[in-house]
This record gives sequence, C-alpha cells and structure tokens, in this order.
Amino acid sequence: MLDEIRQQPTAIERTLLEELPNVEELKRQFAAKRPRLIVLAARGTSDNAAQFARYLIEIGTGIPVSLAAPSIYTLYGAHIDLRDALVVAVSQSGESTDINLVLENAKASGAQTLAITNEPESSMAKLAGNMILVRAGRELSVAATKTYTGQLMAFYLLAYALGANLTPDHLRAIPMSAAGALGLYDQVREISGRYRYMDHAVVMGRGINYANVFEFALKLMETCYVISERFSIADFHHGPIAMIEKDFPVFLFAPPGVASESVSGMLRSLRALNAETLVITDDGNTDMRDAPEHKLTLTGVVRDPKLPLDLFTPIPYIIPAQLFAACLAEHKRLDPDAPRTLSKVTKTI
Amino acid sequence: MLDEIRQQPTAIERTLLEELPNVEELKRQFAAKRPRLIVLAARGTSDNAAQFARYLIEIGTGIPVSLAAPSIYTLYGAHIDLRDALVVAVSQSGESTDINLVLENAKASGAQTLAITNEPESSMAKLAGNMILVRAGRELSVAATKTYTGQLMAFYLLAYALGANLTPDHLRAIPMSAAGALGLYDQVREISGRYRYMDHAVVMGRGINYANVFEFALKLMETCYVISERFSIADFHHGPIAMIEKDFPVFLFAPPGVASESVSGMLRSLRALNAETLVITDDGNTDMRDAPEHKLTLTGVVRDPKLPLDLFTPIPYIIPAQLFAACLAEHKRLDPDAPRTLSKVTKTI
Repeated sequence: MLDEIRQQPTAIERTLLEELPNVEELKRQFAAKRPRLIVLAARGTSDNAAQFARYLIEIGTGIPVSLAAPSIYTLYGAHIDLRDALVVAVSQSGESTDINLVLENAKASGAQTLAITNEPESSMAKLAGNMILVRAGRELSVAATKTYTGQLMAFYLLAYALGANLTPDHLRAIPMSAAGALGLYDQVREISGRYRYMDHAVVMGRGINYANVFEFALKLMETCYVISERFSIADFHHGPIAMIEKDFPVFLFAPPGVASESVSGMLRSLRALNAETLVITDDGNTDMRDAPEHKLTLTGVVRDPKLPLDLFTPIPYIIPAQLFAACLAEHKRLDPDAPRTLSKVTKTI
Repeated sequence: MLDEIRQQPTAIERTLLEELPNVEELKRQFAAKRPRLIVLAARGTSDNAAQFARYLIEIGTGIPVSLAAPSIYTLYGAHIDLRDALVVAVSQSGESTDINLVLENAKASGAQTLAITNEPESSMAKLAGNMILVRAGRELSVAATKTYTGQLMAFYLLAYALGANLTPDHLRAIPMSAAGALGLYDQVREISGRYRYMDHAVVMGRGINYANVFEFALKLMETCYVISERFSIADFHHGPIAMIEKDFPVFLFAPPGVASESVSGMLRSLRALNAETLVITDDGNTDMRDAPEHKLTLTGVVRDPKLPLDLFTPIPYIIPAQLFAACLAEHKRLDPDAPRTLSKVTKTI
C-alpha cells in the first residue's frame, strides 16, 4: 500500500500526459453534442471518485449530474430515459457486473457512454463508446490508492473535455503537489501512533473534498477496521453531532475557499464538545493558521484566483489520509495489503 | 417520540386523503409538461426521504433523478442548467436556508418547482410553484418520525402524479400496514434491552429500503448516541465488511422481492463472521422464514404482484426501527425528545 501511495505523482502524471490527445478529441465530440445530463455509475472507491466528479462537473459546466443507483437498473430492471445523457462508468478492473449492466442499458437508450478504468481490455472498456484510461499500472494492494487519484485525474480531464474552465496547465502542476504531500510521511507516521487504540471515528468535509471524506473513511474501515462515519459538515448538524463526546476522534478536510467558514464553525462546535480533532489543510488556508487542533499542513497546492480555491485540493489532500491509514495499520499490527474478508474484485448484481 | 411514532397511521392517511385532489391536478400538469429530469434537494431526515424518492421515481417513471448537493448552489454559486427539470425541495420546517437557495436558483433557470413541507406558510412553501403538504401536524420531538413517513407518502403521491404505475388504492392500504407495524412494540421493547451497551452498529439494506438504512442509523445516532454506519449491501462488500468481527451488531431490512437474494447472501457472510444480526422483514418474505437471526416480522404489508414486491415496504418497515431507537434510548436512560447538542431547526448555508 505504501509503495502504491508513493507511485501516485508518477501515475497521475502519466494518466494526464498520455490521455490528453484522446481528451482533446473528446472535447471536440462534446462540443458537437453537448450532453443534457451526466450519469455516473460506480461502486466502492470508484464511487467516491464519482462523488468528486459530481461537484467538479456541476461547478465547472452547469450540466446536471446524477450518481446512479445501479440496483435500479440491475434489480428493478428499470428503463431510465437517458437518450441525451452521457453515462460514465468507473471501475478499476472494468469487470463490475452491475456497472457494466448500467452501461448496456445506457447504450440501448441512446446515451453517449464513457469508461474510466485501469484495464483497456476489460469488458467495460469494450462496452463503452469512449474511454479515459487510468494509467496507474496494476494495483496489488486490496486498498485502492493510486487508482483513486488516477480516477480523480481522469475526471479533471473529463471536466476539461466538457468545457469546464480549467486548463491542462492547471493539471500539469498537480503531480508536483502530490509529491509534496508525500513529504508529510514522517509527521503522519508519528501522529498516527496516537490513534493506536482508536476503534471509531468520524470523517468530515464539505464541497469538492466531500469525496475524500468517503475515501478516507473507507481506508480506515478496510485497512484498520476502525468504524468510520462519513459526513458532510452541513449534514452533521442535522442529528449525528449528538454522538460526539469528550475525546471522540474527528478528521476534517479544511481547504481554503468556500468551505472554510463551515469547517471553522464545525471546529468551534467540536472544541466545545472536547472532541479530538485532526485537520488536513494547506498553507494557503489562513483560517487554519492559528487553529489549536492537530494539523497536517500541505504546501504547493495548485491555486488559480479565478477558480474556486479548493478546486485542485482533492488529489494532494487524500495523500496524507492514505498515509495515515497505512501507518495506523502498521501501529495496529495489521496488514493493509490483505485486509481480512476482502478480495480485490467484487462481483455484484 | 413514542407518541409521534404512534400518530403515523393517522398522519399519513390525512396527508393522502387531503392532498389527493391537489395531486390529481399536478398529474394533469405533468402530463402537459413532463419533466426531463428531477432534482431533489434536502438535508437530514428529509434527505433520507429524498433517497427513497430517487428509487421510487426512477423505477416508476424512468425519469432520471439526481439528489442535489446543495453546496454546489450555495457555496460555489454554480448555475446548473435546470430549464426542463422539476426541482423538489423537502424540509419539515420549510426554513432550510440552503435548500431554499437551491429552489430560487431553480426558478431562475426556468425549472418547475415543488415543495414538500409540513408548513404551508413557510418560506419554502411561498417560493415553490407547487406544494404537497405533509399533514403530520407539528413535530415536537427533535428526532423526526412522523415527518419522515409523511414525506414518504408525499413522494408516493408525487410518483403517482408523474405517471408511475401505482394507484390511490395501493396508497390507501398503507396506513393500515403502518398500524400493524406499531403492534410490534412489545417485542421491540424486549429485544432492544439486549442492546443496552451497544455503542456502534451497521445498518444495511438495498433498493427502495436504502433510505430506511440512513433513517434508522440517524435515529440511533441522534437518540441513542450509537455510532451507526449505513451501507447498501452492494457497497458493503467493497471494503467495509473488513470491520465486522464477532458480535458486531448489524441491522438489516429484508423485504421480499428483488433485494432478497442479496440480503440472504449478506446474512450468510455475517453468520460466518459471527456477527450479531437483527432483521426487519415481513411474513411475505419466504427467504426469511427459517433464518436463524433475530427478526422483527411485520404482517399486512401492501403487495401487488404486478409491481416490485418491496414497493410499499418502506413506511411500515421504518416503524419498528423508530420504535427500536425510542426503546433503546429508554434502556440507556436517555431522552430521545431532547438529544444533547441538537435543536429542531438547523440553519445551513
């Protein structure tokens, strides 16, 4: 898992550079036939990446996005009217039976289709009309890491192809910020020791980092067996905050920009409740500079003052979280590459 | 909370009977102008009801449904192209600032709008072009119960108005099945004692009962301070199942029909892991008849062999879950009407 975490700057750079010509062609295609709506179909980590894409694409293009409930297609056999939609299927292996069924349905109803997968010869790649290939290389650890950030990069490319106001130059700077995030390893290793006996936690964030909330919680669940709740800060006030008592461990993503006030407000509430808080932030977030919480602070995150300030935070921000899960598993003497009960490819109908 | 749980058969019947003329008018309106897509905007319990509606409406009408991420409108100020959409805002109080902002945006882009709320004089009711009024009466307990089932009934009415293949006759039989569910009280009170010291749990289901998974977990979090994970059975295999060890408490919704095989498969996995399982099911589910798990078995659930067998299970199925949370709070000597840290109306931007 640690090896694969460290391969990420190279892997996302490779995905970016090698897919760009293909993506420019997609851009022409979408300019000629702009989708009326976008449906994203995925499970597990890929579904977390899709959660990121729903924010990125709606913010960047104004095209409505829906995260598919695959059971509606597979169990209920519903025929959804997707004629002017773009249906994007996301799967590391490209062999998720249910996601491929959604894709088949979409084609039958006349939708444009796109696969985001690591495997160019997979069933999914063959089914879909177009593909953005995640060039992360074979992932051996059961806990997905480089697949996830590779999928995020693929979605940046898709947003660009759909006309979002971001450029290949923005994206070219992301691998460097990911490499910077890896520099937090020693600090993460040390602080994660403090959580040796943690058996439950809440992970929170808001906006474009909401996907990272799900992904961090999933890593904690599958590699450290920590019962990890995941919430949008906005929803947490609607009931779940009642769970929080003294020393309750909470992890927060705190990027600069539109979500920052909301994060600061939540931190004030959590302080009043004497929760134990660890914040993932970067040196561009002045609101966090004097915050008394434990912090992992990134540097060199890509920023363009004309775009939302947190737009390019998700890839570097998930890296300390991945490192945290890997280090905590080690403190707990668990093997994050082979969690109990799990296998790499999950079949669902 | 118990009083309000018990008011549900009357409350949903009132909502049904008094709203039906209004809904017949909506049906004519949608027949004249069929929405291309439907966007549902809500927070907390109302968002759980919206999760139900996404299944109900897509299965019943084939119109694509998206659950809005309100932050995209409120924080990022995105302008989503909703001109041919129907935007449905759901809020008990009708005073959720962020949901009302989504509604304003939707109107500005030319969408049809509909409010589902308990309060006919609320800001939301005034903003929306149409309304389905949840006639549950004022809810005093912080933990929403009759509001939730009232919203589910409102969504059945909306699905009917949008042309789904269900009739007012199906709906008229639901209050009776809800009354039947209340008959499980003694059994729930007894079995919930077993969970006196439970501090974490997982709630699972699939398909149209997925919304109930979120709602049951939310009740356990806010009234009993139990750290409650919520998962689709399909997603649980993708990582989280690694958390499960001996005696881990798991709650499952097990209706007959399309989700049943998936539930049975999960129960087999959980048995092998020696988890502690409580199943909410009904006497129409033959797969559960000999299951060795703890069971709460409903009777008299509305069924039409021409429709998915679980279509009318969500209202009666949530009732034993609500009773469970109320009884467990009592066993834990907590006051479910006034959970720590919470207030009834939550303001978010």
